[in-house]
Amino acid sequence: MTQQTASTKTSSEVNGGMVNGIHMETLLGTVNAIAEEPELGAAKFRASNVWLGGNHNRSTITGFYGAKQEIAHKQKFVLDADEPPILAGNDNGANPVEHLLNALAACVTTSMVAHTAVRGIQIQALESELEGDIDLRGFLGLADDVAKGFTDIRIKFKVKADVQNLERLKRLTAFSPVLNTITQGANVDIKVEEM
Amino acid sequence: MTQQTASTKTSSEVNGGMVNGIHMETLLGTVNAIAEEPELGAAKFRASNVWLGGNHNRSTITGFYGAKQEIAHKQKFVLDADEPPILAGNDNGANPVEHLLNALAACVTTSMVAHTAVRGIQIQALESELEGDIDLRGFLGLADDVAKGFTDIRIKFKVKADVQNLERLKRLTAFSPVLNTITQGANVDIKVEEM
Repeated sequence: MTQQTASTKTSSEVNGGMVNGIHMETLLGTVNAIAEEPELGAAKFRASNVWLGGNHNRSTITGFYGAKQEIAHKQKFVLDADEPPILAGNDNGANPVEHLLNALAACVTTSMVAHTAVRGIQIQALESELEGDIDLRGFLGLADDVAKGFTDIRIKFKVKADVQNLERLKRLTAFSPVLNTITQGANVDIKVEEM
Repeated sequence: MTQQTASTKTSSEVNGGMVNGIHMETLLGTVNAIAEEPELGAAKFRASNVWLGGNHNRSTITGFYGAKQEIAHKQKFVLDADEPPILAGNDNGANPVEHLLNALAACVTTSMVAHTAVRGIQIQALESELEGDIDLRGFLGLADDVAKGFTDIRIKFKVKADVQNLERLKRLTAFSPVLNTITQGANVDIKVEEM
């Protein structure tokens, strides 16, 4: 990372401190701080959710823990989820698995943009289409041998960038935390208490 | 499922066809249709994403494939993602891992509500708090031996329900597709093409 950092500083100076719309001094400041003091990398992200009746529920996201401190977002983020009518909802929000695809799209995109930026690769445009396969028999409890989650997810990126080797861009997606959570798995502990 | 269906119909009649705010005839209609014709369970959910510069990107969700047909949502869902200033963003949206927590909260909540409904268990109120641990050294490429995704996620539900055995509610969360995607993993195929 040290070499990349050095070469990027030159690149970002040329572009007024911005590469791919990212303020490189800020990004590299965070990278360097965590490199020097690894405990600064420990972060806790959070969401609160309230059920609104039926398949409609709402998450609120206000802040997180990082760099050894509680950090508030500039604004409160409110995200609604519901199901379409065929799944007995009212379409008041994307459904949970669509929210998962959004999280994945956002994360892989951000990872590609940030990691190209620190390597001095400029991206002009980037779009993606995601599709995930799920057999609803799993969720509905109709077949024990059917997976309850997504089995296969496909992401197709279209990119306009100053790089001939698109495989290099693809490799940078491997840094994505959401991609890694989905492909490598995470432990999820659930507690249910009386209100 | 057949026995549950039978007992639920009685319960839903008492409640004007609604249990936990879910229109049971619709839900059970879908359940029964898929039970009779398993291929109806095959669904494809989708999202499109456009990079807006820096760490800001936007997903659009318009429809999905299910019950052997393309189904449009009643409205287009637009979801923004960004990073907080400390991660070189402008806080124009929840960040990707926060979006993942939202997806998980929404899905586990929906699973609990729907599966209690078909069992005739009434829920009056349901809230949850989620927290996930991530070491940013993985994403930033500062340590190869550090996981890039979430390692541990904790969900704490507070519930007001007509059930003494809260463990029973907890067990129903196991049907959640997003929970299963995160704990069991999914294959993710990524293609990068020139625009």
